[in-house]
Amino acid sequence: MKFSNRNVYVSSRAKVGRNVRIGDNSTIYDNVEIGDNSTICNHCVIGEPLVSYYREADYENPATVVGPNALIRSHSIIYAGCTLGEGFSSGHRITIRERTAIGSHCSIGTLCDLQGNVTIGNYCRLHSNVHVSQTCSIGDFVFLYPFSVMTNDPCPPSKEVKGGRIGSYTQVGVHAIVLPGIQVGENCLIGANSVVSKKVPDFSIVMGDPMRVVMDIRKYVVMGKGRPYPWMNRFDRDMPWEGIGYEAWMQRQGNAS
Amino acid sequence: MKFSNRNVYVSSRAKVGRNVRIGDNSTIYDNVEIGDNSTICNHCVIGEPLVSYYREADYENPATVVGPNALIRSHSIIYAGCTLGEGFSSGHRITIRERTAIGSHCSIGTLCDLQGNVTIGNYCRLHSNVHVSQTCSIGDFVFLYPFSVMTNDPCPPSKEVKGGRIGSYTQVGVHAIVLPGIQVGENCLIGANSVVSKKVPDFSIVMGDPMRVVMDIRKYVVMGKGRPYPWMNRFDRDMPWEGIGYEAWMQRQGNAS
Amino acid sequence: MKFSNRNVYVSSRAKVGRNVRIGDNSTIYDNVEIGDNSTICNHCVIGEPLVSYYREADYENPATVVGPNALIRSHSIIYAGCTLGEGFSSGHRITIRERTAIGSHCSIGTLCDLQGNVTIGNYCRLHSNVHVSQTCSIGDFVFLYPFSVMTNDPCPPSKEVKGGRIGSYTQVGVHAIVLPGIQVGENCLIGANSVVSKKVPDFSIVMGDPMRVVMDIRKYVVMGKGRPYPWMNRFDRDMPWEGIGYEAWMQRQGNAS
Repeated sequence: MKFSNRNVYVSSRAKVGRNVRIGDNSTIYDNVEIGDNSTICNHCVIGEPLVSYYREADYENPATVVGPNALIRSHSIIYAGCTLGEGFSSGHRITIRERTAIGSHCSIGTLCDLQGNVTIGNYCRLHSNVHVSQTCSIGDFVFLYPFSVMTNDPCPPSKEVKGGRIGSYTQVGVHAIVLPGIQVGENCLIGANSVVSKKVPDFSIVMGDPMRVVMDIRKYVVMGKGRPYPWMNRFDRDMPWEGIGYEAWMQRQGNAS
Repeated sequence: MKFSNRNVYVSSRAKVGRNVRIGDNSTIYDNVEIGDNSTICNHCVIGEPLVSYYREADYENPATVVGPNALIRSHSIIYAGCTLGEGFSSGHRITIRERTAIGSHCSIGTLCDLQGNVTIGNYCRLHSNVHVSQTCSIGDFVFLYPFSVMTNDPCPPSKEVKGGRIGSYTQVGVHAIVLPGIQVGENCLIGANSVVSKKVPDFSIVMGDPMRVVMDIRKYVVMGKGRPYPWMNRFDRDMPWEGIGYEAWMQRQGNAS
Repeated sequence: MKFSNRNVYVSSRAKVGRNVRIGDNSTIYDNVEIGDNSTICNHCVIGEPLVSYYREADYENPATVVGPNALIRSHSIIYAGCTLGEGFSSGHRITIRERTAIGSHCSIGTLCDLQGNVTIGNYCRLHSNVHVSQTCSIGDFVFLYPFSVMTNDPCPPSKEVKGGRIGSYTQVGVHAIVLPGIQVGENCLIGANSVVSKKVPDFSIVMGDPMRVVMDIRKYVVMGKGRPYPWMNRFDRDMPWEGIGYEAWMQRQGNAS
């Protein structure tokens, strides 16, 4: 139904892999490379030109790379200069601005807004409507929930751009805010609606506004379920340890390296 | 202006009622049924295929029903497998995922994001940018305001999906969050920015994070206005009791049944 | 790349200035006027008709004015009856409803949602995903950050529409909420996640929910940086005093008047 080649534009300077499908009404601009077996749904724009394009006669679109096995859902905009790793998937209407680098097997939800110069590791999942400011960075296996925000201006308005960092395995709840330049450790749980205003050590549960570190996550007990964190032993969907278990996978990683 | 049939695609397997208008650049996929006198504006996608479509050669699009007298504004995406009742209306760029069932005379605002398997009653109004997770349910005559969220994962990340419930006649303020599996009663008022973390009895006013039930809504007095809640006696726009009053309408309902 | 005139519709009753570029898949409806040297990117709709268009056979689209030197990014919707001043720029997927008047040199970020009858002065900057309800007004040189909201219904649901006001030079943090009818003074700083529930005097720093005026902004000291507010002496990007300084510019304004 979707791939009938109606109103599709692919630049002659784009490089499209094998078994790539491009949905109706989509546009692939100059210097975009799309890996094998990827699907770009309808109404998408890949390789959206930077602002200088509107002003400069000799504008050259920076290289954009979409890895193999991607599934980019409809109405999404990926700017030129981005790199999306293998197995990337997205919801609808995402916006990823220039020079954003995303590792492999990440999923970016409907209406997410990555402002550019953002770095995201592997196997991260941003749910709907997450906003990440310029120069923020995110580790591996990080989950951000709807309307969570990473900001970057410590004294607005200013020209200072000071993105924070979220460590690997951390969960960031709905409507949580990470203030400019703040470092959030690994294996943390940031509660819904928290405002993260100072450095968060590894293994912290954080709640509230102003934030408090309420406990070590390894001590957190859920009635009838034991200690649910770190979560890697109890959740494996779409994770590299799916079916084999986190410990076994870690061991293999150790052996391989 | 809008209905000049430019770049419109309607599947030969869709069923379009009488006096239906479909805006330019819109797409109606397989097995969609659109009721009489409905208007689908431009750049919409109705019957968006499920993820299995991208993988299965023999994919069959589930049935999608848009009731009569609908007005779906531009750039909206309605997944296959949804049922939208009579008199449905929407803002722009809404996303409604699969197996969502919405009653009659509901209005879903610009940028709303219903994640699928959501149940909504009749005469509800979701303002802009409301996010509803999978398996959540909403009664009748419920209003949700911008950036309010219903979540569903009690221990993220997990495979547990535990949507909450909002009872009839309840108002949910801007930026309010209903945590996973929480039951909110009927005729409540959830204040702006509240985090609803436990069961809310009928007729409660709730505020804050952590939430507090601050009073019985029937006792709430506004200076110079008396007792504004329950609200049905003072507000009737687009409600079934418009022009006749809530009490009279209730009586008729009683007689009819 | 963008302006190859594919699937563009411009009403014969629109008035397009010199050196205007209109992106592929964009639509310009009746009675729209676009100033010289403006760029409308792809997939945009300018002059979106009001709801009465769907019902009235003799509907006439109200006049819409986009000033000169505008840059409206892709997938944006501007309703008929809006006026956007000189040098307007936008992110992607903005929605501006009818009878909104925006001064000169404003920037409206990706996914912003202005609900109509909104008034915005000059040199304002709304970052991504700001929601402004009907009848709200905003002064000059105001910055609103992501997911901030101005509401307008004091006793929901009601027919009362009571938009608030944000004074000139004020900064409104991420996820902040301005409640219905509230007046926020000039030169204020509204902290992230605040709920502004009562009148805010000029030069206030406001934080929290419930809000507190925590200090006079002129007394706020940042270690190693002195007193950063008012901000006009330390920030001039895209401001009319860029390169000459705020004081000198103010003096010129005084002399000119």
